Amino acid sequence: MVRSNNKINKGTLFVISAPSGAGKTTLCLKLLKKNPDIKLSVSFTTRKPRSRETNNVDYTFVSKARFMKMIDKGEFAEWATVHGNLYGTSIKRLKELNSAGYDIILDIDTNGARQLKKRYENAIYIFILPPSFEVLKERLVDRRTDSGEVIARRLDNAKNEIACYKDYDYIVVNDRLDKAYRELESIVVASRLRISRIDPDKIKKTYKIK
Amino acid sequence: MVRSNNKINKGTLFVISAPSGAGKTTLCLKLLKKNPDIKLSVSFTTRKPRSRETNNVDYTFVSKARFMKMIDKGEFAEWATVHGNLYGTSIKRLKELNSAGYDIILDIDTNGARQLKKRYENAIYIFILPPSFEVLKERLVDRRTDSGEVIARRLDNAKNEIACYKDYDYIVVNDRLDKAYRELESIVVASRLRISRIDPDKIKKTYKIK
Repeated sequence: MVRSNNKINKGTLFVISAPSGAGKTTLCLKLLKKNPDIKLSVSFTTRKPRSRETNNVDYTFVSKARFMKMIDKGEFAEWATVHGNLYGTSIKRLKELNSAGYDIILDIDTNGARQLKKRYENAIYIFILPPSFEVLKERLVDRRTDSGEVIARRLDNAKNEIACYKDYDYIVVNDRLDKAYRELESIVVASRLRISRIDPDKIKKTYKIK
Repeated sequence: MVRSNNKINKGTLFVISAPSGAGKTTLCLKLLKKNPDIKLSVSFTTRKPRSRETNNVDYTFVSKARFMKMIDKGEFAEWATVHGNLYGTSIKRLKELNSAGYDIILDIDTNGARQLKKRYENAIYIFILPPSFEVLKERLVDRRTDSGEVIARRLDNAKNEIACYKDYDYIVVNDRLDKAYRELESIVVASRLRISRIDPDKIKKTYKIK
């Protein structure tokens, strides 16, 4: 069998987006911690690391020059400018994780998800929402790491992102973390039971059918 | 909005099949017990009730004459002959459960599932498998309610049913009941998060988007 170069076929690619403040990062980290067979595709970015962020764990932090060179070489499955910084997903990284048999989480914004959909049709697209606009606002203010101006810009952006919810296969509303986590995990568990993930030869052998 | 007469649109229709001895009934009963918002569509049948079976709970037991009349009137979404007995799903019953907003479980054989697929494209088709052919055989022998001849016929039938697994969306292997139940429930939970189940007006209102 010829394996297509760019396809994710040995595991499932989960593309997860959310307006900032929806709790996406917490949910994804919990999923990764509880499921060693799921790996995060670490994005490249030109933005400066925040305190507590680690290179090649949270992001791969690169210079703008390096990032532009990667664009020129066609090394990104998607890339985008968010709040003035560049973010991108390496095709090579996705291929490597897939070849190793992992399910992959891609934590990206709605623009990135739209680009990925053209290339990875069989991926599962999940959108995480806060329970309401008011709660989203509160969460962004409580974070206290960003200036008022940044918060206002994030809120504007959040509305635009939420308006893209129809591009996704599943919607998880994060009103209670444990409930939202259970829902996210159900999507992952169910995806592994899909007929596309079943090996026909194994079925034939196990049940003695032709 | 005009509601289509035959469509399941207010909940999800889960069509569940399995070779006999796979543990389908146990799994479905557990799902129903734990989820009061899921209802079983009780099939009509011409076969005699087994001990412990209750009319209109396990099946609606009817005469062959009555069943043939229902076929003539086009009252079945699917019907089939299994082991010499007639089994059928009432269109009216599905419509009533759907109108009341329930998710519906339809516990039927592979022939029935194939007929339903033509009418209910958006239903979710789940196939439950025993861990192996050997285990299936053991389970059918252990049951002791059937004669050797019946067991042999069921085993032949089981192979034919298993060969239809590709008609289904999801495969659940029932090697451990708790694991299989968790998987089945994940399919149900995930189905409720699908974009097709989301009300666009509610999203607009909750997040103040246009």
